Amino acid sequence: MSSGPIAVFDSGLGGLTVVKALQKHLPNESIIYFGDTARVPYGNKSQALIKEYSEGITKFLIGKKAKMVIVACNTASALALFHLKQTFDIPILGVIEPGAEAARAVTKSKNIGIIGTLATIRSEAYEKSIQKLDSTIITKAKACPLFVPLVEEEWLEGDVPKKIAETYLNELIIEGIDTLILGCTHYPMLIHVFKKIVGDKIQIVDSAEATAKYAKRWLEDLSLLDKHSSVGLLENYVTDLPVRFKRVARQFLGREIDHVSIIHID
Amino acid sequence: MSSGPIAVFDSGLGGLTVVKALQKHLPNESIIYFGDTARVPYGNKSQALIKEYSEGITKFLIGKKAKMVIVACNTASALALFHLKQTFDIPILGVIEPGAEAARAVTKSKNIGIIGTLATIRSEAYEKSIQKLDSTIITKAKACPLFVPLVEEEWLEGDVPKKIAETYLNELIIEGIDTLILGCTHYPMLIHVFKKIVGDKIQIVDSAEATAKYAKRWLEDLSLLDKHSSVGLLENYVTDLPVRFKRVARQFLGREIDHVSIIHID
Repeated sequence: MSSGPIAVFDSGLGGLTVVKALQKHLPNESIIYFGDTARVPYGNKSQALIKEYSEGITKFLIGKKAKMVIVACNTASALALFHLKQTFDIPILGVIEPGAEAARAVTKSKNIGIIGTLATIRSEAYEKSIQKLDSTIITKAKACPLFVPLVEEEWLEGDVPKKIAETYLNELIIEGIDTLILGCTHYPMLIHVFKKIVGDKIQIVDSAEATAKYAKRWLEDLSLLDKHSSVGLLENYVTDLPVRFKRVARQFLGREIDHVSIIHID
Repeated sequence: MSSGPIAVFDSGLGGLTVVKALQKHLPNESIIYFGDTARVPYGNKSQALIKEYSEGITKFLIGKKAKMVIVACNTASALALFHLKQTFDIPILGVIEPGAEAARAVTKSKNIGIIGTLATIRSEAYEKSIQKLDSTIITKAKACPLFVPLVEEEWLEGDVPKKIAETYLNELIIEGIDTLILGCTHYPMLIHVFKKIVGDKIQIVDSAEATAKYAKRWLEDLSLLDKHSSVGLLENYVTDLPVRFKRVARQFLGREIDHVSIIHID
């Protein structure tokens, strides 16, 4: 089993930020990426539907010999992870627990802000995960539905992203947070905008980065790390628009990708 | 058949602006609204998928005895209407032809601007429809992917919608347009912002309004108008989140709605 790939799935393309972090921390591991581009976004769907979609995708990935499944979608991590862990018997990792743990390690004032999609914030998954680690930490969460379309339009510079980010983040800054969790895999693409607004006194925690480190530790504990010294492969599956995926993936990963297949999942 | 309902379908909730216009122009007609809220948005999906979804929904609506189907989704009108007309033998109307015709009737300088989602603009459906009516008209189109999330977040006032709209619309204004087509059913909710930017010299054409008038004319021609003098009923079907639908529908229609059912479509 240690030779199987790590599988990463997301509703769309944002989970590629997790792939990028995995390639940095675990360069020998092969990765399967699954982007549910026909049904993106999950952020405005019901829990029942998100569970159903996540189960179908995980089944497919286990069929591809995945040794670990990473749910790179914050919405699916918030709403379907528990169900997946009960249903399947391989290691399944979400992005929320790693993000919460990284934030707990960083905060000094014990006042943590969280930003994400509507569904992620409504689920209160980060708050619950942080409370489990340290019940004295105060959290303040804010849904930011405009960040994903900004990133997808590559509108990353200038007045508009700045004003939108200011409007959203100021609500958290006035609460006195010293740590900000990016609770959506798209958000690292706007990190330069956020940094200017929050300044030096607020640490930004990128869930994608935290998740890759967490996956490495877990695979070490289970003796599931790939023993080969060669560079791992990346295989990609999407449910719609493979050509667009290739273009965006190049931008997210900073390199060309080869293997993209289109697949139909029920 | 004249007693059957008019069916209106959209990828989500935006098509309710067409329902509102129908209720104004055809108060006696009963209406079935279908919002594909599980698979919204269509704007970033492939033509093959949009055809497949639209066909399944139209089949369902014909099963509900619809006498006419209005494709209130601009993306589906652009990419699937021709296919639907070939497949089914009842009157099927999109929002593009009525919008194009209304704009042609209004323009004096013969210079028309079009705004819409990525998929609608990429399809060039408005341009083609306008060219068929008058090949001397010049068109200029602009995709505006941030307007739908702004409307869905009800962020309709202040600096952010203004700046976003200025950025998008200025590209059309400098081309000298005298008419602007709102090529997305969400956009009428931002019409007050657009009006301030384009001023008095540019006429705004709302496709929803144009479509309702077109439907009335077509039903008259076919002698399919409802003969009853009582106020028509509104029945609603969605593929996900019926409670949210009720809330948003109240806002779009300005009145309470009763009948919302959730339905699974393949």
